[in-house]
Amino acid sequence: MKHARVVYQGHVVNAIESEGALLLEDGRRVNFDAVQWQPPLLPTPRPRTILALGLNYADHAKELAFKEPPKEPLAFVKGEGALIGHRALTRRPAGVNYMHYECELAVMVGRTARHVRKEDALDFVGAYLVANDYAIRDYLENWYRPNLRVKNRDTCTPIGPWRVDAADIHQRPGGAMNLALQTTVNGQVTQQGNTRDMIFDVATLIAYFSSFMTLAPGDLILTGTPDGVVDCQPGDRIVTTIEGVGELENEIALM
Amino acid sequence: MKHARVVYQGHVVNAIESEGALLLEDGRRVNFDAVQWQPPLLPTPRPRTILALGLNYADHAKELAFKEPPKEPLAFVKGEGALIGHRALTRRPAGVNYMHYECELAVMVGRTARHVRKEDALDFVGAYLVANDYAIRDYLENWYRPNLRVKNRDTCTPIGPWRVDAADIHQRPGGAMNLALQTTVNGQVTQQGNTRDMIFDVATLIAYFSSFMTLAPGDLILTGTPDGVVDCQPGDRIVTTIEGVGELENEIALM
Repeated sequence: MKHARVVYQGHVVNAIESEGALLLEDGRRVNFDAVQWQPPLLPTPRPRTILALGLNYADHAKELAFKEPPKEPLAFVKGEGALIGHRALTRRPAGVNYMHYECELAVMVGRTARHVRKEDALDFVGAYLVANDYAIRDYLENWYRPNLRVKNRDTCTPIGPWRVDAADIHQRPGGAMNLALQTTVNGQVTQQGNTRDMIFDVATLIAYFSSFMTLAPGDLILTGTPDGVVDCQPGDRIVTTIEGVGELENEIALM
Repeated sequence: MKHARVVYQGHVVNAIESEGALLLEDGRRVNFDAVQWQPPLLPTPRPRTILALGLNYADHAKELAFKEPPKEPLAFVKGEGALIGHRALTRRPAGVNYMHYECELAVMVGRTARHVRKEDALDFVGAYLVANDYAIRDYLENWYRPNLRVKNRDTCTPIGPWRVDAADIHQRPGGAMNLALQTTVNGQVTQQGNTRDMIFDVATLIAYFSSFMTLAPGDLILTGTPDGVVDCQPGDRIVTTIEGVGELENEIALM
């Protein structure tokens, strides 16, 4: 099932996808265009920790001139304030030279995970989402340090439109580790990849993080992006798509 | 006024300090020893973003063999799961060589801050707290990248006991920028400093962060530590004190 959180007629409402429309929790059916989409987080609890991976696809690591892929997950924490919903605007600050999208599979933790074994790890996934974790390269001093100004700005991480139940993804051939990713800029394909090319797969990441910190229901892990990032300009319409998970649309504005 | 959140007889209760005891919200008075202390966050909202500074005192930057102090705040985001209360245990993992405390003034945001000028910034502070942001040096690859395993483990950040109203601190001579910090290990003084030696003071930090991200009520900024960090061993009792803000006590356990 695909879950959403939307604003409809001034109120935040939970909804599910139903035959190309939204079925609101009060039983009304509305078109996708009739709502404003919010990040499809759980209504409660809010995420305690939002983790994001750098350089988790070998081709992207190579693209960024890394000689060898990382030997340990390169992860950092994000603030919830960076998140926005489907079809919201992402700001490009004036005067920067290079701002790129990053199409990423996001994993939402479904139950409390601590010292989880890799072979059990997928049982702790509650849902999958599409995220687009924009970066502003100008501010990057060091690949090991995704500076706050690179990765934690307001509006820099659209996520959604859906929170897709993990079971729906796990039942596919190859499960979460065989999903095509694609980004288009103004309708042109600029990024193509597949989750099978992750250096640290979803189960490995959950086992790794839970070895030293508790993952709580609602927590998010953004699992990194493959190669094919390009500069985004004001007015560009960016669509990040992950097979079976959704199509996340977003526009850049100079603000 | 000094606010706390404590567990008393099985329930989380808000409390204030009153003549050396706790006055619970239901009017009962109890001793400090009768409760379990929780991180004194706002009952609601929970923090969206917890920021922490690296190398924000010149002497500590020097201690860590930096040739020059940073020219821009070296900040990173922490997950809420790292926080524990006064008198809770901090885990030292087996097999690590160097785990040190960091006595830090924590700033709690009081109202939504976006594009705040430095001269107005202190109006956006809601409260001050004592934090002890432990680090495990073994996992530090790079000073610019406080790795998750260094700074985001469960129990690695005691905070409290109090959330002290900003006005109480601002009315002191020198306000928040003239507070003595001290750490003792088993009663021996090992760290002494003063908030006036911060490289980026509280107002500068709020202006800086709010220039690219919204700070929301309840968000925290841990402002860094002066020099004098030493290795902490299981059984050590660490007390971090900030003048006017509180005395945060904590013990290390091998777990």
